[in-house]
This record gives sequence, C-alpha cells and structure tokens, in this order.
Amino acid sequence: MVGGEDPLPGARVLISEDRIEEVSSGENKPLPETNALISGEDAIILPGLINAHGHSPMTIFRGLADDLPLKKWLFDYIFPAEAKHLSPDTVYWGSLLGCLEMIASGTTTSIDSYFFADQIIEAADKAGMRALVAQGVIDFPAPGVPDPKKNLDVGLAFLERWIGFSDLITPGLFCHSPVTCSASTLRQAHEISTRFDLPLQIHLSETKEEPLEILKKAQVRPAFYLDDLGLLDSNLIAAHAVYLNDEEIDLLASREVKVAHCPESNMKLGSGIAAVAKMLGKGMTVGLGTDSCASNNNLDLLGEMDTAAKLAKVASLDPTLLDAESVLKMATVRGARLMARENMVGTIEKGKKADIIIISADTPHMTPMYNPYSQIVYAATGADVRDVIINGRIVYKDRQFTSLDSDEVFANIERISKEIA
Amino acid sequence: MVGGEDPLPGARVLISEDRIEEVSSGENKPLPETNALISGEDAIILPGLINAHGHSPMTIFRGLADDLPLKKWLFDYIFPAEAKHLSPDTVYWGSLLGCLEMIASGTTTSIDSYFFADQIIEAADKAGMRALVAQGVIDFPAPGVPDPKKNLDVGLAFLERWIGFSDLITPGLFCHSPVTCSASTLRQAHEISTRFDLPLQIHLSETKEEPLEILKKAQVRPAFYLDDLGLLDSNLIAAHAVYLNDEEIDLLASREVKVAHCPESNMKLGSGIAAVAKMLGKGMTVGLGTDSCASNNNLDLLGEMDTAAKLAKVASLDPTLLDAESVLKMATVRGARLMARENMVGTIEKGKKADIIIISADTPHMTPMYNPYSQIVYAATGADVRDVIINGRIVYKDRQFTSLDSDEVFANIERISKEIA
Repeated sequence: MVGGEDPLPGARVLISEDRIEEVSSGENKPLPETNALISGEDAIILPGLINAHGHSPMTIFRGLADDLPLKKWLFDYIFPAEAKHLSPDTVYWGSLLGCLEMIASGTTTSIDSYFFADQIIEAADKAGMRALVAQGVIDFPAPGVPDPKKNLDVGLAFLERWIGFSDLITPGLFCHSPVTCSASTLRQAHEISTRFDLPLQIHLSETKEEPLEILKKAQVRPAFYLDDLGLLDSNLIAAHAVYLNDEEIDLLASREVKVAHCPESNMKLGSGIAAVAKMLGKGMTVGLGTDSCASNNNLDLLGEMDTAAKLAKVASLDPTLLDAESVLKMATVRGARLMARENMVGTIEKGKKADIIIISADTPHMTPMYNPYSQIVYAATGADVRDVIINGRIVYKDRQFTSLDSDEVFANIERISKEIA
Repeated sequence: MVGGEDPLPGARVLISEDRIEEVSSGENKPLPETNALISGEDAIILPGLINAHGHSPMTIFRGLADDLPLKKWLFDYIFPAEAKHLSPDTVYWGSLLGCLEMIASGTTTSIDSYFFADQIIEAADKAGMRALVAQGVIDFPAPGVPDPKKNLDVGLAFLERWIGFSDLITPGLFCHSPVTCSASTLRQAHEISTRFDLPLQIHLSETKEEPLEILKKAQVRPAFYLDDLGLLDSNLIAAHAVYLNDEEIDLLASREVKVAHCPESNMKLGSGIAAVAKMLGKGMTVGLGTDSCASNNNLDLLGEMDTAAKLAKVASLDPTLLDAESVLKMATVRGARLMARENMVGTIEKGKKADIIIISADTPHMTPMYNPYSQIVYAATGADVRDVIINGRIVYKDRQFTSLDSDEVFANIERISKEIA
C-alpha cells in the first residue's frame, strides 16, 4: 500500500482451527466498528465474500449465447442446452469450475441453486467452500426431474440426504418463480423449508412481464400473491426483485424477506434496475449475487460491487447512494444475514468462522490508498485476490489452488464444452 | 483456451520494426473481417486498446473523495486538491502511474487532457505509449495557468513545442466545457486546432445542468451553440455527451463530430446515461473512455467495455443493444477513428503499427471459450492482459513492465500521496 490512510498497520488475524481466535490492530488502534476490512501494508484483509445468488454449474454455458432477445436466449439456447447437456457429470464439473472461479475471486460462500443439486454439494465439499445449495423446483419437466409431479419428493429427499452432512454445507429448496411454480407447489416447498428451518429461494419479479402474469392469474402483484400463500417470512430469499412497487417493498420489509440483488445479470439481460437503495432504506437485508455465467458472464463479486454502487447512483442521479462501505457489506455481512449465518461468517470477529481473503494492494490500480473501501469497491477486481481461507483452511495461496486440481477441472470442461459447442 | 470455437489456432502476427508485417491464420482459415481479434490456444490477441477520454495525472487522487454530491465532490475536494497539489512534478508522476495502469490493463493509446500537459507527454514518451495529449483550456485561473487570459497562448506554445516530436505523440487542445470557456475562447481554440489539423477535445453536456446553463446563456442547446461558433467538425471529440436531444445527435452526426463515451464515470458521479446505441445507429464514431481515476476509479478499459454493453442494454431494456463485438470496436478501431489514426492503429492488419495485446485465456473465468468476443467483453478484466506491444516495442512481458521502473513510480506516488492525504 502506498501512502494515505492506513487504519491498521501491522494488523494480525489469528486463526485457531476453523475459527478466528483473535483480531489485533497491531498499534493499539481500534478495529473498524463494522469489522468489514483490515487495511495493511501491501494488502487488505476482508471477510470472505458471499455470493447471494448463483447457479454455478452454468459456467459450462459461459458465453454460449449473448446479446440476444430474452425469449430467444432462453427458449432457443439456454433451455435446449440444459435439456440436452445437463447430467450429474456436467453439473459436477461445471460446479467445480464455478468453485475455482469463485475462490480465485474471493468468494468463500455461495448461495447456489440448480438441478442435480447433489453434484453442486459434492463439488462445493471437494473445493472446501461454504455453501447453501438448493435443489430447483419447477412445475415443468426439468433436468433430472422429468416428472414435475415428483419435484417436491426429489427436493425433500435432497434435504434429508444432506442435512447434517457438514458444517459448511446447508441444503435448501429453490422455487424457480411464482410464474413457473403452482400455488400448491409454492405452499408445499415453503412448508417443507419451514419444517427443516431452512432458507427457501425464489426468483421474484426479475422481468417486467412477471408482475403482469401474476396479476392476470391472481389479481394481485407477486409479493402479495406470495404473501397470500404464506411464503413471506425471514427464511425467504427473493432473487432479483426488480419490478416491485412501493407497497410490495413495504410488505417484503415488514415480513423480513431477504433480497439477492444481481445488478450485472439484470443489466445484461435488459431486465431492469432493482430499487436497492430504497430496500436498504426500509431496513431490508439485501445481499449481492452474480447470477449465472450464462447471464453475467463471470462470478466476480468485486466487479459486481463496483457495478452495484455505480448502477444505483446513475439510476437515481444521486452519487451518494450505495456508498462503498454499504456495498461491501452487501457482499459480506448482509450476505451472511441473508442465509441466517451472521453469527458464523460475514465479518472479521473473534469467535467467527475463519473465512478470510487477502487482496493485493501493491499494483498500479490500487495505488495510492486513501480509502480502502473505495479501493475495494471502485478500483479492485477479483484478480486482486491473493489468498483465500475458508473455515480455517487455506484453499488459495499466493494465487494457487490448494483444495482443487485445476488441470483436472479444465480437462473435463474441455470435454464437456466440445459436446455443447 | 478450452473447447469451443477456435477461429485461428496457431495464428501468427509477424512484426517488423514498428509495423505488422504479416498476419497469418495458421490453418488457411480466413481472418475475421473486422481484424478485431485473433483467438488462439490459451490466449486471445487483440489490437491495443484505445482510451478515448482520460486525465491520467488524476491517478494521484484515486479514492480521495467518493460517494459525495457532485458539487461537494468538485468544489470541496477535487478543485482544492488540484489547486494545492498540481505541479509539473505531481502531474509527471501521476501520469506515469496512469501509464503503468493503462499498460497493465491493455491500453496502448491514451487520449488524454489536463493541465501541465507537457509532463503528461514526457510520461507517455518515457512509457513508450501512443497518446493524444491535450493542454487544458478554461476561462478560470487554472493549475499552471493562473491568468486565464493567457490560456490560449499557453495552449498554442504547447502545440508548437510538441508537434513533430515523435510518431507516437500528438499534442492537442482541450476546452474544458461550453460553460467554463467563453465563446471567444472556444472559437480561438477551434481556429488554432484547425490551423494545425489537430483534434480538439471538449466536455459536452456531461450533467443535466449544462444544457440549462447554455440555454440560459445562448437560448439554444449546447450542440447548436457550438455549431453557431463553428466548432462542430470531424476534428471535434466531445466527451460524455450524456444530455443530447435527438436534434443535437442528428446535428453532431451530420457534422461528423466524434464522441468519447465514459459510462463508468457517468454512473459513479450520477450524471446520466449517454444514448450510445442511438449515436452508433446514426453512423457516429463513438470511442470508449475511462475518464479520470477521481471518478471511476480505475483505467481498466476491459471492465469499461463490460459496463458499456450492460448499461446500454438495461437503459433500453433491450439485451441486443451494444453487442460484444460492437463494444470491442469502440475500444479499438472506433477509438482510432476518433483521433484520426484509423490508418495507423485499431486493428490487426498488415502495414499498421504494431500495437498489440495478448490476453490470457487459461483461467477459470475465461473457460470454456465458445465466443471470444463475449469472453473479452463479459468475462475478462484488465488483469487478464499478459503482454503489451506498442509500436513494435514490448512494454509489458508476462506481466512485467519493461519500459518503466514501477518501484520508482510507486516511491514517488507514496511521497506525493502523503502530502495530499
């Protein structure tokens, strides 16, 4: 680090087994109240980043179809590719590629959801990542679940199979959307999730059309529709939440529903701009997600923070909205709260699990350093991540993977991508 | 590169002295018509990127003041910092830091403008970069030009000093804006630029307020105001161009005025969204610029391409706008056209100057590779740049600087930033 404010020179984070044993500022300076970062000589220490919404197996479709009208993209490219190419094998290797990418860009926890979710868990476990992995539930024939009547049975068996498997892995259910799941499916998925006290994920009002379809079907807007079904509670994670009116935001806030904001995906698909600053102003918990590599096309949460901050400002013509510290919290402590793990991860605090990343700050674009929050959000990218520790285990050391054999993953992705291309 | 389309395996670009001697596809495949990229085994070869608008010395203010209301940011932080800290010394070292950052992220040509422009040229020359460097002209006391009455004399002397200095360096003038320069200053700056056949740069309608101020002063909107003064011609580079109505876009298009689009700066300052797709639709030449590190806060054109594409899509709710190839052209061949150097740089073609960059594609986030354009724009960042050649000279080899001593630059930036902090 060159010049400027240096809040914690010589700081130390002591790790014992899987936990943070002690955090020391090194010069008797107070630690930042937020425990959001520690800025050192040539590096910045951060809590591991938490990707609030993604579908990691879709790395295998990265760049397969871009710049297309939404329906053409979905119906002519993504759905057919999923139907033809998804299998336990492709989902496993795609998830591992996602784990490589997330680790290399500082993500230690992934809130993930897709079909063949068993293989996502196997990959996350092999990588040593922390993850909430949800099995997709949709009332159409789906990869691995050809009979939609069985989607909840598959989901329930998935939960029962993985609950208690590991401290790092939490299973869950993911209802695709209020449009693609029936009222009965939504109700039952919620009932099962409540029974196990697990987060339930759903895509909510990602596109302009969704509220219109629900209005037509149920005569109320989507948030009220879900409330009538009993889904709105603090276990619900609503991804996207682009098209909500003020009454819906108030309703979601009062029910303590969590939101996963995915600005880059919403931009690239031409979906729209979620009212994040307004939701935060109502006290809602909003995390930050990359969405999948089919709609982003990377899993870089550092880049996503930059975009989130800038998009909120230009959407409102107010440069003070979503300041750097606030957006960093979305990718850390607010992400932890999203999955009800704020007592475990999300900050650098004594007693929390040791999920920690170290960002290099000795490069031209990180110099000079007046404000580490600005540097992290507006100047850094995922490529600045040098070391990653998850649950006390070093999984990325001086930019080398220690938990995964990247050559093996690349070889399998080459095999799979040749079939897809 | 793993899997997928591989348009030019074994491709070769032969360089002789400062020029591209031969481009060979390696397997008798046709080269891409656009000469925009060559995709190889583990790497992608691109024409060097062209930053269409920046103020490189402002790297010394990176992260000094963010997330503030525009006027507070400008009047309480940036203007005072400029008045207090700008000197030939700080501009020189700040420019060199900018050169390090631009080279490391694949920019080979910078269209730059600021005060103490002599030192920007000295830095670009030392770095071996190609640059159009303009001396700032403003009708207020300015750094290095305390008497505004002398701003054009200073500018003219600057041009006379540097014309013919080097094949790589072009001097120019930069009128700060139609609001901060008088009609007489604008007219004279244009007259001088025309006399030397040099591009003239100006900030045009960056904020919502500017058209209102010009309307009040001149009873016409800014583009028409500049047209009345005779400024609109193919030598004019208008930066930002956020608040233009349709008549102004038609006028600029008919006069062949060039536009430098700066999406990240416009987002971060809460300025607004330029109608880039519309301008391109009218046949206008639009390049891509980072603007300064005080308002971005990095000089990464690969990240800027991603943002430009996504911002155009979300602003219009049309995901087909500004596709990957189109936005790559903005940062290459259209940037070359912007500075009237399309016969010299901007594509990989026999006879052109050898400004070439090589992007690593052997990392998780660049895998698999179905479409190199998508990969460059939506997945890559500046950190993926491995090698940079400018005018036939290797200035960055396997991520090491060969033309500059980065330690010397960092030491001087540390000294300067301690004074500023």
